[in-house]
Order: sequence, then structure tokens, then C-alpha cells
Amino acid sequence: MAIHPLWNNYPTIQKQLNETQKVMTKAVKIRNEEMTSALQLFFQSGGKLLRPAYFLLFSSFGSLSSSEKRYKFAASLEILHAATLIHDDIIDDSPLRRDKPSIQALYGKDIAVYAGDFLFTVYFQLLAQAADDFSVIELNASNMRKILVGELDQMDLQYNTDITVKQYLRHIKGKTAQLFQLSCYEGAKFSKCSIYIQHISQRIGHNIGMAFQILDDILDYSSSEDSLHKPVLEDVQLGNYTLPLILAMQENRAVFLPLLEKKQALNPDELRTLVQHIHTYNGIDLAQKIADRFTNKALADIKKLPQTPERDILTEITKHLLNRQD
Amino acid sequence: MAIHPLWNNYPTIQKQLNETQKVMTKAVKIRNEEMTSALQLFFQSGGKLLRPAYFLLFSSFGSLSSSEKRYKFAASLEILHAATLIHDDIIDDSPLRRDKPSIQALYGKDIAVYAGDFLFTVYFQLLAQAADDFSVIELNASNMRKILVGELDQMDLQYNTDITVKQYLRHIKGKTAQLFQLSCYEGAKFSKCSIYIQHISQRIGHNIGMAFQILDDILDYSSSEDSLHKPVLEDVQLGNYTLPLILAMQENRAVFLPLLEKKQALNPDELRTLVQHIHTYNGIDLAQKIADRFTNKALADIKKLPQTPERDILTEITKHLLNRQD
Repeated sequence: MAIHPLWNNYPTIQKQLNETQKVMTKAVKIRNEEMTSALQLFFQSGGKLLRPAYFLLFSSFGSLSSSEKRYKFAASLEILHAATLIHDDIIDDSPLRRDKPSIQALYGKDIAVYAGDFLFTVYFQLLAQAADDFSVIELNASNMRKILVGELDQMDLQYNTDITVKQYLRHIKGKTAQLFQLSCYEGAKFSKCSIYIQHISQRIGHNIGMAFQILDDILDYSSSEDSLHKPVLEDVQLGNYTLPLILAMQENRAVFLPLLEKKQALNPDELRTLVQHIHTYNGIDLAQKIADRFTNKALADIKKLPQTPERDILTEITKHLLNRQD
Repeated sequence: MAIHPLWNNYPTIQKQLNETQKVMTKAVKIRNEEMTSALQLFFQSGGKLLRPAYFLLFSSFGSLSSSEKRYKFAASLEILHAATLIHDDIIDDSPLRRDKPSIQALYGKDIAVYAGDFLFTVYFQLLAQAADDFSVIELNASNMRKILVGELDQMDLQYNTDITVKQYLRHIKGKTAQLFQLSCYEGAKFSKCSIYIQHISQRIGHNIGMAFQILDDILDYSSSEDSLHKPVLEDVQLGNYTLPLILAMQENRAVFLPLLEKKQALNPDELRTLVQHIHTYNGIDLAQKIADRFTNKALADIKKLPQTPERDILTEITKHLLNRQD
């Protein structure tokens, strides 16, 4: 499997992600044929491997020990991410994931439930093999819990037209920022960085994750229909109201309410109207400003890290990710 | 919550299960209200807490250390069991669990997927808090994996009218025996029993688990319709063919095939005919003989344990469970 082209300019990281991928491929081997092909499909769909990459980059700032364990940690983060995505697609009845049919669309919800469960097991096994002390296991368990609570928040907030910016931010903190935070922090911790670097690694991961998710939610409304990675219509129909919509509604509730009241019956024409309203009432720009605040905080903290080639990669890749247009 | 009446005659174990339940109740607290009530419903539905009970009984044969950790281990086993049951009910579209509506029937598959995931997290957290060395974490992770593989085997075998006894036994080994084996072994290991006792604890757990599942499958066909805990019709419609049916088919395939070919269209009248055929062709008796072999092995091994009051309880409760009529 080729590594995502995002890493073409960074051969060191590309090579390490390749090693990580080998660990992943080996770890997810299982006797069941259908499961094997479902997981192969999923992992070939070309994720950017951002969480392992952030882990690997942060683990460069301390003293490097066993590289085998290092790749196991890196792999465990992507495996946990994959498990939550696969289960999320069941919840959302998503037909697509990364422009390809989702596991549940191709293999049904039975395989999707077990595929997620199986990946939780693999995650757990990799950690047990890589961890040097129990605090790492506890750290991961409590993070996994927070991610799940974030996903539950999303369910709680569905169809809630009174959703506040604060509620939205709390939800994406769990759903997305938590795992970025864990990835950066675990890298710093694994390589025995100073307490100061461990501390800012958490802050950097949190801020990158927040900006990343807001940008994702902005792109849903701003990209042309062809380049949409996950149907926006579906999200609004499911009652997932994200930051651009929340902020635009604060400018003019009256134009949005009649559309949102249609819930699942909202049709593509009405969605186009809704998207226009979001643009008219500055939803995109206002959301972008909030994303920029998180991005700038992350970039400012990255400057405080030791001046190494990896720090430069971290800066470049973070800027690239948080300025992407698709 | 009252502990299942099964334990009324054993106040020591009843008290310990009560402590275990307290740990469970505390561990599954979560901010989401819907999830909290779904889990409360599940845990109030009155499981027998067999896996914690076997853990606690086996942990009495060595030297007892921290009782707090002991209850965390006991609780973790029931939590893992609950997680797999909740996800299995999604796969099977089960309306009932322990005579009450299943989580997915009452709250939908979204909550059911997340409830299982959340319990995996709790399991993981309890283990991280209770474990003294990493081998315990690895042991649990590899057991969780084997349980899942057993569940996948079941999916593979669906509607397979050529299913062999060997395939059936391999499947229930993963699905049921694995967790009984872990419970007994973990108890012996936790209390630092001799290697010999640790070894036979695994064998005892395995044999109890195998007999327990076969008996469960026998009861599906032998109990009166009112006392059926999980609709048999549903199981056959879903293509889950268990030991009584497999053995009866070996006597006369021709009478069964036309019925099984109906798959999901099998109606209650046809099911009654199928059940009659199973009785006519000795499916129940033959399955019972295989169950008895596992039961007798377990009871013979229990005799090799230190002669303590707990050993007597172990014998009584195992005999009771493996002779139950409902």
C-alpha cells in the first residue's frame, strides 16, 4: 500500500509511516476472510495517517528508544481512529468513506460492528505490547472514553437548532481533538521529553485537532459538490449542525429555521438555499476566524519546540493541513 | 440492585458480587443521560454474574491481595461480557435480552453500538487500574480477540447445512468458553496460585463454558415456549444451527433440509415440526451426552483443587448450572 502523497516531500516521515503501516497490516490479520477483505478495503482507501505522523514527529523531540515499540504506538493510534470511523458510519448510515463505499455499505452492519470491535482489540493488543508503564494504558483508556463521550454529545445535539458554539466546541473536542492531543502527547511522553514539552505537546495536539475539525466542517459547505468527501445533505438531514451553520444562524435565525424544520425531508434544492444563506450570513468566514485562532495557537506553540528538522516538518504540515481547500 | 437469587445460598459470594456490582455501577457512570438509562436497564435485567463469580471463587485458592483490585477484575469480566452481548443483539436484530427489550430495540442501534464501545472502554480502564503486570493486559486483549473470532465464525457458519460438530465446537469455544476460561484463570493468576492450579483453572473454565453453551443451545429446543429466553425461531431463521440440530441432521438429513431451505421464511408451524424432528432423531440426547462429557471433566478437575468451602461452592454451582432446566 502506498502512503498518502501528502508525505512525498518528507521521506523520513514517509519511511516511518511505511513501517507503521507494516505493523498495522500484520496486526489486523484475522482468520475470517470477509473481515480481512473489509479491513483491507478500509486501510487501502488512503487515509493521511495524520495521527501516527504527529506521534512520530513528537517522538523525535526526546530520546528514541525501541523503534519496534514506537511503530506499535503509532499504529495503535490509527487503528483506534479507524475503529471509531467504522462505527460512526453505522450510526450515520454512511454510504461513503473517503470517496469509497463504507464497510457497512459493502458488507453490512454486522461486519461493520465486528470490524470496529476487532480493531478495538488490535488497539488494545498493540498498546499492551508497546507500553512500558500502566499510566500509558490508563491514558489511552481515558482518552478512548472521552472520544466516545464526544460522539455521544453529537447524538444529544442532533436536530437541536439552539445548539451553541460552546456545545459544538465541546463536542468536537471529544470527537476529534482528543485523539490528536493523545497522538502528540504520547509521542512526547514515549520519547521521554521534558515535562514542559510534554505539556505543550498536549496543547498543540488539542489546537490542531480543533482547527482540523472546524476546517472539515467548513469544507463541507464551501467546496464544490464534486469534491465533497462526505455528503453534506446527509449531515444536515441527520441533524448534525456544525460551526458555519451555527454562526450564520446567530445572524439570522428566521431564514434557517423553516429549512431545518424539514429535518430528513430536506431536499437538494433546499440544501443549496441553506448553503447560500450560510455564505450570505458569513458563516464560513466567522468559522474560519475561530479555526485560525486554534491554528495560530498551535503554530505559536510549535515554535517553542526544539529547533530540529522535525519541527520544520511539523510547522509545514500543520500549515498545509489547516489551509487545505479540499 | 439485588444480586441474582442463584447466589442466595452462598452469602460469602453474594456479598462479594455485591461489591463487584458497586464497582460496575460506578465505572459505567457517564454524562449522557440516554446512555446511562440504557445501561441501567441492561444491568438491572438480572444476569447471574457467573464470570465474576468464577473469578472470585478461583481467586480464593491463592493468597488474597488488594480487594479493591480483585473487584475491579471481577467487574471487568462482566463488563466485557455485557459489551459483547449488546453488540451481538445488533447483529441478530434481537428484540429481547433476558426476557426484557434489548438496548437496540428500546434505544436504537446508535445507542447500542456506542453502549458496547463504551463498555469496552470501561473494561479497558478497569483492567488498567487492576493489573499488576502487562501480561494480564495482553492476556485480556488476546482473549477479547478470540471471543470476537468466535463470533465471526458464527457469521461464517450461518445457513451452512453442512456445519460439522467440530466447527460448532470451535465456534462456541471462542464465543462462550473463552471468557469462562479467562475468568477462572485470571482468578487463579491474580491470587498467585501454583502453576498447576493456574493450569487446571483454564481447563475447568473451558469445560464449564463449553457445557454451558451446549446446554443453552439444548434448552432452546427443549424448554416450553413460554420459558424460552431467546426466540428459537429467530435463531433458526438467522441460520444459527446449533448442536441438537447438527446431531439430529446426522441421523436424517432429508427431513431437515426442506425446512432449513426456507431460511428467513420458516414459520412457527414449520419450526414446531423442526423441533419435533430434532427430538425424534435424538438431537437433544446426543447433545446432552457431549455436554455431560465437558461437565464431568470440569467436575473431575475441580476435585483436584484445594479442599476449601469455595471448592464446595464451585462444585455445587457448576452442577446446578449445568443441570438447569431453564
